[in-house]
Amino acid sequence: MNLICDKQQLQEALILVSRAVAMRTTMPILECVLLTAYENGVLTLSACDKDLTIDVAEVPAQVDEPGSIALDAKLFTEVVRKLSGEAVAIETDEKNNAICKSGRSRLQIAGQPADEFPVIPENELNNVTHRYTVKSNVLKDMIRQTIFSVAVDQSKLILTGELMEITNNVLQMVAIDMFRISYRMETLPEGTPDAKAVVPGKALSELSRILPSEEEEEVSFFFTENRAVFEASGFRLVSSLLVGDFIRYDQIHNEDFTTMVIVDRAALLGAFERAVLLAVENRMLPIKMDIQDDDLTITAQSDRGQVEDGVPCQTEGKDLTIYFNPKYFIEALRVIDEEQVVLKFNTVLSPCTIKGMDAAGHKYLVVPLRPPS
Amino acid sequence: MNLICDKQQLQEALILVSRAVAMRTTMPILECVLLTAYENGVLTLSACDKDLTIDVAEVPAQVDEPGSIALDAKLFTEVVRKLSGEAVAIETDEKNNAICKSGRSRLQIAGQPADEFPVIPENELNNVTHRYTVKSNVLKDMIRQTIFSVAVDQSKLILTGELMEITNNVLQMVAIDMFRISYRMETLPEGTPDAKAVVPGKALSELSRILPSEEEEEVSFFFTENRAVFEASGFRLVSSLLVGDFIRYDQIHNEDFTTMVIVDRAALLGAFERAVLLAVENRMLPIKMDIQDDDLTITAQSDRGQVEDGVPCQTEGKDLTIYFNPKYFIEALRVIDEEQVVLKFNTVLSPCTIKGMDAAGHKYLVVPLRPPS
Repeated sequence: MNLICDKQQLQEALILVSRAVAMRTTMPILECVLLTAYENGVLTLSACDKDLTIDVAEVPAQVDEPGSIALDAKLFTEVVRKLSGEAVAIETDEKNNAICKSGRSRLQIAGQPADEFPVIPENELNNVTHRYTVKSNVLKDMIRQTIFSVAVDQSKLILTGELMEITNNVLQMVAIDMFRISYRMETLPEGTPDAKAVVPGKALSELSRILPSEEEEEVSFFFTENRAVFEASGFRLVSSLLVGDFIRYDQIHNEDFTTMVIVDRAALLGAFERAVLLAVENRMLPIKMDIQDDDLTITAQSDRGQVEDGVPCQTEGKDLTIYFNPKYFIEALRVIDEEQVVLKFNTVLSPCTIKGMDAAGHKYLVVPLRPPS
Repeated sequence: MNLICDKQQLQEALILVSRAVAMRTTMPILECVLLTAYENGVLTLSACDKDLTIDVAEVPAQVDEPGSIALDAKLFTEVVRKLSGEAVAIETDEKNNAICKSGRSRLQIAGQPADEFPVIPENELNNVTHRYTVKSNVLKDMIRQTIFSVAVDQSKLILTGELMEITNNVLQMVAIDMFRISYRMETLPEGTPDAKAVVPGKALSELSRILPSEEEEEVSFFFTENRAVFEASGFRLVSSLLVGDFIRYDQIHNEDFTTMVIVDRAALLGAFERAVLLAVENRMLPIKMDIQDDDLTITAQSDRGQVEDGVPCQTEGKDLTIYFNPKYFIEALRVIDEEQVVLKFNTVLSPCTIKGMDAAGHKYLVVPLRPPS
C-alpha cells in the first residue's frame, strides 16, 4: 500500500469509525482500524467490535499502490492528529509496518495483516427487499427520546435492544426495561412495507452520535435476517440483531385514566431533580406524589434530610397519592421537548403514562412503587 | 440563623470556596462549608482541608437572625444550584438542620455544629510586616509557568511546594523535582522588603484557578511564620507553609554553553509530542536529540514503532547528540508563550536550559538521560 491523502479528511474519517473500535478486548485486531486503498483513488476505513461495524466509504487519496493494513486505532488516530503537514503519505512494508510521513516527520507503526480483520460478507447485505429512508435528525431524535429505557441488566438480553417496527406506514421505536416503556413513532410514506427488528442499544447509541444533525441530511436503513444496516452521507453502520420476541407494549396506547394532570415540564423536572439530591450514595429514594386541588406535591426523605416541593397544575378526575422511582420520571421529562406534559394515572399500582402536550409522537409509561405499608 | 440572599451570588461563592473542600477524608466536618451570618447583613463562607482554607468574605444577605452552621459542601452546592427561585431563604433549627426555601421548594438538610469547624486563629494573621501586591493575571501566569515541576513524590516533602522568594525587589518562583527546575521572576517596586517561603503546590494550583484573569485585578499576599495568605477581590486563601531548606537553584542562572540552539517552539513541541505517542503504556520513552548543521533531529523507538522528526534551527557552537525524558521538554515548551525558544547545552550529561527568546522572566533547566552504552 502506498498513498497520499489529506490529513484533515483522514482525521475526520478516523473519528467516525473509531466509535466502533472495541475496547478492553482479548482480540487486539478489534482494536485496529482497517485501511484499504483502491486503485481508483479511494481509501476506505473500517472498525468493528463483535456486533458493530462502521465503515467510512471514501477518503479521496492518491493511490500509488493499492493494498490494506490493520493499525491500532488509538495510536494511528493520535499520530494523524499530531502530524503537522496538510498531507499524509502512508506506505506499508512486507512486515506489516505502516510508515506515515508528513513534512519532516516519519513515524513507523507496527500493524497487523489486513486478512485477520473480520469482515461482513457483502453478499449477505445484497439481498435487500426495501430500504427505508428518514431524515437523519428525526432518527437521531427518535433514539434520544427512547434509548435511556434500554435495559442495562443482561438477564433479559432482548431488552438490551430497541424494537424498530414498521407497520401501517409507521416507524415505531420502543425501549423497555422492567419498570418502564419509552415509545416514539414517526409516519412513513404510504405503501411502506412492514418490518420488525430488535437493534442493540449500543449500536443505536453510537449511530445517534455519528448521524448528521443537518435538516437536509437523510439516513437509509434496512434489515437482513441477522443485521441492521444504516447508511448516511459518508458512513455505513452495520449491527447484528438481537434474537427473540420483544415484550408486547400495547398497554402504552391505553388512554383510560382516573386522574389526569397537565403540568409544566421544567417545573416538575426541577422538583424531581431537587428531591433526588437527598438520595444516599445512589440508593433509590422513593418519591411521594400528591395530586389534589390543581396542585402536585412531591415529598421525600432520607438520612440526609427532607424535601417538599409543589408544582401548580391542571387536574381532572380523582385525587391521588402515588410513589415513584424518580429516575424514571427524570429521564423521560428530560427528553420531552414540549413545555407542558400530560400525566395519566389509574390506580396507585398501575403504570402512569407521560406525554408531551399535543405530541402524538412519543409516550412514556412508568410503573409506580408499592406504597409503604 | 435566619437569612435571605441572592441565589446567584450564593452559588458563585460556593463554587469558589468548594475548591478547598477536603475529599475522601475521615473527618466529615472537612467536607462541609461553614456558613456564618452576621447582624450587619453579611454572610461569609469558609471551606478548608487540613492545610488550605478559602474564605469568601461577603455575600450580601438580609440577616434576620445571626448564626452559623456547617453543611455538606457538595450537597448544599447542588441544592442551591437546583433551586428555581432567585432568592434563597436559609434558616437553622436547634438540631443543626438547615431549611432552605426558594419558591415552593423546601429542603431540609442535616448539618453539623459550626464550632466543630476548624478555624484559623485570626490574631496569628494580624502580625504582618508587609503586604506584597502583584497583578492577579501575573501571579496566575507565574504559577502556570512553574507549577508542573513541583515534585509529586512525597519523599522530599519540601519539593512538593514552590519557593516564593522576594529579594532585591524581585519576586522569584521556583519549582524543582529531581531532574528539572522551573523558574519565573517578576520585578517588584523599589524598596520591597525581602521574604522567602515554600508554598505547597496544591495551594498554588487552587489559587491559580480562582484568581481573576482580568487585567486590572490585583492580588495581595503576605507570609506569617507558618502560613501564606493571598487576598483578591472576594476571597482569601490561607495555606500552611512547608518547613525546611529549599534546594539551591543558582545553576539556572549559568549562561555558559558549548552548544546553543534557537528553534521554533511549536515545531519542537510537535516533534516531541509525536515521539511520545510511541511510548508503551506510559513507560518513559528516551528521545535522542541530534544537533548538527542548523538542524535538530529527534529519534525514538519502542515496540510500537519508530519515529524520526526534524526541525530547522539556528545553532552556535559544537554538534551534539543528547538524550532526554520527553515529558520534561514537553511540559516546559507548552507553557512558554514566545514563538522561539533558546536551548543551551554543555556536555551530554549536564543540564540543558530552555528559555523563551527575549524573555528574561522564565527559565527551565532539564537534566538529560545518560546515553545508552
